[in-house]
Amino acid sequence: MSILCVGSVALDSVETPYGKAERVLGGSATFFTAAATHFHPVSMVGVVGGDYPVDELDFLSERGADLSGIERAEGESFFWAGRYHDDLNSRDTLETRLGVFADFEPKIPEAFRASRFVFLGNIHPDLQNQVLDQVDAPEVVACDTMNYWIEGTRKELVALLERVDILMVNDEEARQLADEPNLIKAARWIRERGPSTVVVKKGEHGAALFTDDRSFFVPGYPLERLFDPTGAGDAFAGGFMGHLAYVGVLDADEMRRAMVYGSVMGSFAVEDFSVDRFKTLRTEEITERVHEFREMTEFGGARR
Amino acid sequence: MSILCVGSVALDSVETPYGKAERVLGGSATFFTAAATHFHPVSMVGVVGGDYPVDELDFLSERGADLSGIERAEGESFFWAGRYHDDLNSRDTLETRLGVFADFEPKIPEAFRASRFVFLGNIHPDLQNQVLDQVDAPEVVACDTMNYWIEGTRKELVALLERVDILMVNDEEARQLADEPNLIKAARWIRERGPSTVVVKKGEHGAALFTDDRSFFVPGYPLERLFDPTGAGDAFAGGFMGHLAYVGVLDADEMRRAMVYGSVMGSFAVEDFSVDRFKTLRTEEITERVHEFREMTEFGGARR
Repeated sequence: MSILCVGSVALDSVETPYGKAERVLGGSATFFTAAATHFHPVSMVGVVGGDYPVDELDFLSERGADLSGIERAEGESFFWAGRYHDDLNSRDTLETRLGVFADFEPKIPEAFRASRFVFLGNIHPDLQNQVLDQVDAPEVVACDTMNYWIEGTRKELVALLERVDILMVNDEEARQLADEPNLIKAARWIRERGPSTVVVKKGEHGAALFTDDRSFFVPGYPLERLFDPTGAGDAFAGGFMGHLAYVGVLDADEMRRAMVYGSVMGSFAVEDFSVDRFKTLRTEEITERVHEFREMTEFGGARR
Repeated sequence: MSILCVGSVALDSVETPYGKAERVLGGSATFFTAAATHFHPVSMVGVVGGDYPVDELDFLSERGADLSGIERAEGESFFWAGRYHDDLNSRDTLETRLGVFADFEPKIPEAFRASRFVFLGNIHPDLQNQVLDQVDAPEVVACDTMNYWIEGTRKELVALLERVDILMVNDEEARQLADEPNLIKAARWIRERGPSTVVVKKGEHGAALFTDDRSFFVPGYPLERLFDPTGAGDAFAGGFMGHLAYVGVLDADEMRRAMVYGSVMGSFAVEDFSVDRFKTLRTEEITERVHEFREMTEFGGARR
């Protein structure tokens, strides 16, 4: 059974210190699927306008994505333009045009309703709720969100958490949601509201996993060739969920491995603009980078 | 042979969201020694004024520190007052009075000159240079610095790097020194100027080791009870150098272990004001925390 992924399917124009890309594939569902299909099939649900270069999504179908849930509506596709600062840790949004995404109401095709793994990309919590109303009994519901929803639809978001197993947010979002500067306490606050697991993405500083088990930390991959950070978080989610769906086991060991596969896919995402790196990425490269993560974190234990 | 440590011996007044401490023991040499003496004896060199509560340093002598290199000059001791913000990642300096530290000229006692391990705390690069002129042939020279010296005495600092084996700085300082936003490239730039090893401290985000060998990353210890971040970097340096001096071996494995011991000691430093945590810290607690670091970073490797 495929992973069900609901989110934005967008066009991005991106400027970084290293270059520029105009109207390229973007959106949370696109990045998630581009990464996750390296592990497991994905069923995408989203909406695009008449201007969307849908042919460019063919590489996803070839990798096992089912695109039949992507609605084609009249109007413009969701468009985002942004410029990253020199250190690539911050960015300015130059333009956001929601287009057909403004009226998006996710309709989950019959064939996708029995999905065991569901990823709710960063959209309005009410829409994320609607998705869960339409699926049978998923084993794992992972959910992303952002400061915009935390500020504007806090009540809906907190209510949604009861139906979520894994919340995946960045450190700022975790702190903002819990209104708590200490990340450990913030993660506990979130876990007390539903999710058994909180995954905190920290960009170049790596990622943290909070569960009943002890916490787990994975560093950021030390990249010199960092072209474009857009989509790294969704690619992380794709690697994370892709691995869990691939092994079909949800124990502490596999959650940790999922964190590493997530980090690996996030690190590949930023090596090129848009989802381009995933088009040529080979399984051996993924495995090699997992080994690198191991090598750059292991040490011999106490010596006294 | 003791580790030679040259740096500030100060009085700090600190305010954090969790409390307040007035005129307590502080300074880079003090924090370094408080941490390092849990592993290996330390010879301290510094200066204090007539107002310094030297008796309060007795716990360091009891742990194996030689304080005979701490000069007592006429005048006031180096005093620093600061207030930490809510997230404890940033702070405002409320007052700095250099006092006798303004005219500090390190004089290395004869008995300390054969030291194999030397730690140059954060002082003027010319003074750091003077220390190295007075020692015989140390195997390991580790050096800290700060934005103030990078901006004001850049030429002297870069010249000093030729005599340094391990530069220990925070991520902002590494980027500023190399004038390079990418940390990996910044570390390479520094290593090309002398130090074979660069240790980058990233506060709550952990620490990174850059050597000829592959890089190594250790996460920040997930602390809920974080009272006072002052001195964490120097305590890190103390754990790092303390471990190396204890094992007397400088290979890649021990450098990694040193990173973990450094992180452990940094994490203890922030659990209480001033150096207070080190007064009661037991070896079993250090070892237990090393195990925790291992548990929170290990994973099973690739599964495909």
